[in-house]
Amino acid sequence: MSKRILNCAITGSIHTPSMSPYLPITPDQIAQNAIDAANAGAAAVHIHARDPENGKPSSDLGLYEEIIDKIRAKNKDVIICITTGGGAGMTVEQRASVVPKFKPELASMNAGSINWGLFPAAARIKEFKYDWEKPMLEMTKGFIFQNTFADMEGILNIMNENGTKPELECYDVGHLYNVKFLQSAGLIKGKPYLQFVLGINGALAATPYDLQYMKETADRLFGVGGYEWSAFGAGRAEFPTCVQNLFLGGHVRVGMEDNLYLGKGKMAENNAQLVEKMARLMNELDFEIATPDEAREILGIKK
Amino acid sequence: MSKRILNCAITGSIHTPSMSPYLPITPDQIAQNAIDAANAGAAAVHIHARDPENGKPSSDLGLYEEIIDKIRAKNKDVIICITTGGGAGMTVEQRASVVPKFKPELASMNAGSINWGLFPAAARIKEFKYDWEKPMLEMTKGFIFQNTFADMEGILNIMNENGTKPELECYDVGHLYNVKFLQSAGLIKGKPYLQFVLGINGALAATPYDLQYMKETADRLFGVGGYEWSAFGAGRAEFPTCVQNLFLGGHVRVGMEDNLYLGKGKMAENNAQLVEKMARLMNELDFEIATPDEAREILGIKK
Amino acid sequence: MSKRILNCAITGSIHTPSMSPYLPITPDQIAQNAIDAANAGAAAVHIHARDPENGKPSSDLGLYEEIIDKIRAKNKDVIICITTGGGAGMTVEQRASVVPKFKPELASMNAGSINWGLFPAAARIKEFKYDWEKPMLEMTKGFIFQNTFADMEGILNIMNENGTKPELECYDVGHLYNVKFLQSAGLIKGKPYLQFVLGINGALAATPYDLQYMKETADRLFGVGGYEWSAFGAGRAEFPTCVQNLFLGGHVRVGMEDNLYLGKGKMAENNAQLVEKMARLMNELDFEIATPDEAREILGIKK
Amino acid sequence: MSKRILNCAITGSIHTPSMSPYLPITPDQIAQNAIDAANAGAAAVHIHARDPENGKPSSDLGLYEEIIDKIRAKNKDVIICITTGGGAGMTVEQRASVVPKFKPELASMNAGSINWGLFPAAARIKEFKYDWEKPMLEMTKGFIFQNTFADMEGILNIMNENGTKPELECYDVGHLYNVKFLQSAGLIKGKPYLQFVLGINGALAATPYDLQYMKETADRLFGVGGYEWSAFGAGRAEFPTCVQNLFLGGHVRVGMEDNLYLGKGKMAENNAQLVEKMARLMNELDFEIATPDEAREILGIKK
Repeated sequence: MSKRILNCAITGSIHTPSMSPYLPITPDQIAQNAIDAANAGAAAVHIHARDPENGKPSSDLGLYEEIIDKIRAKNKDVIICITTGGGAGMTVEQRASVVPKFKPELASMNAGSINWGLFPAAARIKEFKYDWEKPMLEMTKGFIFQNTFADMEGILNIMNENGTKPELECYDVGHLYNVKFLQSAGLIKGKPYLQFVLGINGALAATPYDLQYMKETADRLFGVGGYEWSAFGAGRAEFPTCVQNLFLGGHVRVGMEDNLYLGKGKMAENNAQLVEKMARLMNELDFEIATPDEAREILGIKK
Repeated sequence: MSKRILNCAITGSIHTPSMSPYLPITPDQIAQNAIDAANAGAAAVHIHARDPENGKPSSDLGLYEEIIDKIRAKNKDVIICITTGGGAGMTVEQRASVVPKFKPELASMNAGSINWGLFPAAARIKEFKYDWEKPMLEMTKGFIFQNTFADMEGILNIMNENGTKPELECYDVGHLYNVKFLQSAGLIKGKPYLQFVLGINGALAATPYDLQYMKETADRLFGVGGYEWSAFGAGRAEFPTCVQNLFLGGHVRVGMEDNLYLGKGKMAENNAQLVEKMARLMNELDFEIATPDEAREILGIKK
Repeated sequence: MSKRILNCAITGSIHTPSMSPYLPITPDQIAQNAIDAANAGAAAVHIHARDPENGKPSSDLGLYEEIIDKIRAKNKDVIICITTGGGAGMTVEQRASVVPKFKPELASMNAGSINWGLFPAAARIKEFKYDWEKPMLEMTKGFIFQNTFADMEGILNIMNENGTKPELECYDVGHLYNVKFLQSAGLIKGKPYLQFVLGINGALAATPYDLQYMKETADRLFGVGGYEWSAFGAGRAEFPTCVQNLFLGGHVRVGMEDNLYLGKGKMAENNAQLVEKMARLMNELDFEIATPDEAREILGIKK
Repeated sequence: MSKRILNCAITGSIHTPSMSPYLPITPDQIAQNAIDAANAGAAAVHIHARDPENGKPSSDLGLYEEIIDKIRAKNKDVIICITTGGGAGMTVEQRASVVPKFKPELASMNAGSINWGLFPAAARIKEFKYDWEKPMLEMTKGFIFQNTFADMEGILNIMNENGTKPELECYDVGHLYNVKFLQSAGLIKGKPYLQFVLGINGALAATPYDLQYMKETADRLFGVGGYEWSAFGAGRAEFPTCVQNLFLGGHVRVGMEDNLYLGKGKMAENNAQLVEKMARLMNELDFEIATPDEAREILGIKK
């Protein structure tokens, strides 16, 4: 049984500050969370930036730079994976601008378009901390997370030019076919690295069945051994999805981008706690955690 | 083993006139194809309109009216199912305008947003008959088939107000969760009627595995017996997908919207030929074909 | 899409003469059925012998010799596959005695032990033609179809010594693991040729789900392309199982060993009718039927 | 999420004393292991007896009586489940004799016949403690674990007469069909309680795929909510199988009958350690452990 990569997604762009007082928002908080997550066992940290004033997701390159610098000041080793998810209305160049700027080893590439229905969350929050939160959640009723074939081609071309390995975020079974299509078109170099994202309203749910379908379809399309993959489930499905994916042979991702709770009714106070819990489960179940360099070898990326 | 519904989708909006000289385009051709398909065994015909001048998909209500009148002049019985797929840039009201206007028994409702990648087809066509065809196919590289949660809610409300049963077109596994979400929100009356659409570039492929996943997921979400469903596969997968779906207990759809060939290298000259072939297969495999009234009973719709 | 092998199992040992007046019993009948099946498209015929006096399954080598000689007098080409299923109380040497005697190109090898519950059939037969039929069916309530690891090893050794390719009959998912075990032990030469047998009371049923599991498990154990496989379903599931297996990429088997009916309420009067129906379906669905020599090439056997 | 039953199988009849110095053998050891397992969280203990002189599996009713008495002297609460697996050559009456004698709340009933290939284990043991071990393991090359339809009917009748709930041990997918057959014949009262047994050489392996097939087939045959089920995997698959089964909604079984190791290279010194590890995992993953009385309610058994 080979070593497994433990990814940690620090803050993302889905959760809003009112959902947890512990959500890292400032560059300092995001960087410190990333450093602590790495110390707790994460081989890779997945980074989004937020406006330090109000926690709103931001694509400000200055913020990204500050976060990366702060992480690297304390940790030269952890893999830094940067999002290209972008926001509504952004062009491909804007979304991918982190790539030529920072030439990260790893960056996420979303493998298809889906409805992105966060709106039911708005009704569950009694009091909003910031003005932007409620409208942002509610507007998703009419929102599509846009990743057209042209968008994907554009982003992959930019990654290929900059030596960045794409982490291919797959939210539905059809997205695996999209990846296959892009691979056939020569846009994906080396073994594809897939991230199965389960539990977004608009795509797959985070059930054992959905994860099984993703795995079986990926085996069929890329061949056993022809790809690497990680998985995570949103919310309370985080740990079950990760553990099941270990059983299937894959890597895992935890973090406050995907889940704010350590367990029933118990909030995570930082990302390291989530990584520690995952590491504890891996240890209990005899899975060895890859170091950043081992992760680089598994994924075929150069530092 | 209960009776099965044979649907026929007459012309759709995917294929372009250059792909087959037999594609029905004018209201006369579309209506005649529908009438002949019904005579060959189709209990329901799925209708799109096209500009009679150049075959371009059209949402002109006058064209729809002409088609429906021509069908009804010869056939009072067949179920007429009208599309609400619409076109790029159309509002929900525009897309659903056929519903209040014609109050059809059945109309399609697309259950999610996906990339709609017809563009590889452009390269396979040597000579285009009309100017609009090539750009239309090529622009799909950047196109999303938009059906947000707000869109779906809007269209279903209009259908519910007009007594129209939605045929819920599901292109990926996640779309079944969308339907479940809409059902839980009270927007779907009676048993959901699902149409599994396999083979669109951007969503599921038309393989036995994908159909199996759709069936198993639908069983899990709606319960065995808690829904009705049909399936079809694009292109050469049409008959295999339909036959496999019969084995799984479902209904079928054929027609020149989905497939232009009777068999390897042999073009269908009209929709009736495709219906006849499907009926022959059903007969050979001991499946009984539902009449339009039996189909109404199965689907819970009133004439 | 490559060519597919159409196998025909002429008479088997499950059905009894009271179940169909058309069941071939004498060497003449069995040979003529095999010859006609081959002419109708079967590349391989699967042979059991019966006592010509009363139709009771027999392991008399003289009867086998007579059948084979009669087939070969008219057809030098068809692959003759002989059973090694044997009967209760027979030793491995007795069961496999057809192999050193006739050195067939192909012989069946049952890949595991299961309950063999034919007894419910006894209650459905009003009048028995022969005395042995009812007790034989009823005794299966306490019967196990015995194929221990030692039995399988013994039979495979005899086949390997005689240049006979085993057709590995798999009745349950676990039997695929047995085949893998035997392969790892070096007992199976070349690509395994699996026969998925669905619908025996005591093992898998003949449903689309069971066939899917068998296919997915075989892919997982032997790798896509690492094996050849055929499938059939007992009784009315014969044609659906075969057709689904074509969609999955496999070969098919029909014949009066497995199924006595052409369709609902319509008995097959001979094996050729079943082969013709299968050939018609393959033709309608664009699958090409392999000749005996093409089948030999696919299976890696020498004439 | 409802409470889950943690079963513990104390010693079984597969492992031999040479495999672990900690295997409980004497009535004292077996009873003490059961008591400690119950204290650690097991709601039910599954009991086999062994000859205290040499650890050989035994069906001596006196030994069973001694074990049960010793357990009950310290624990009035835990569910005691007794095996009816028996040994080679035993009649149904002999195998089921524990049922009329002790009228246990729960007793195992094996749901089909399979090869029982323990023989590869013989080669892995360097030194045998007792003379009977090696021949017993080696003879399984020719052994079938016999549970014919007649056997199952006989055992179930005895259980029904004595108010004992059968725990239906299913080793292959086909065994679920056997259970369905027995249920249809009126032999199973109330919701069936299935135990998915994964990893016996001769039936299913202990992989995530096999467990998934069992669950999906059981859902299809008995309906979601129409049955209760537990699962376990042999050897190192014990904890992964149990944890995956929790995710699927089921109960779990651990114990030295199935697995002698706490983790890689680390032997369990008693059953309680295995129960504690399972309980720790359940706690970490937010699954609540049922008390014996809660387990009785879930299974529909009376104390």
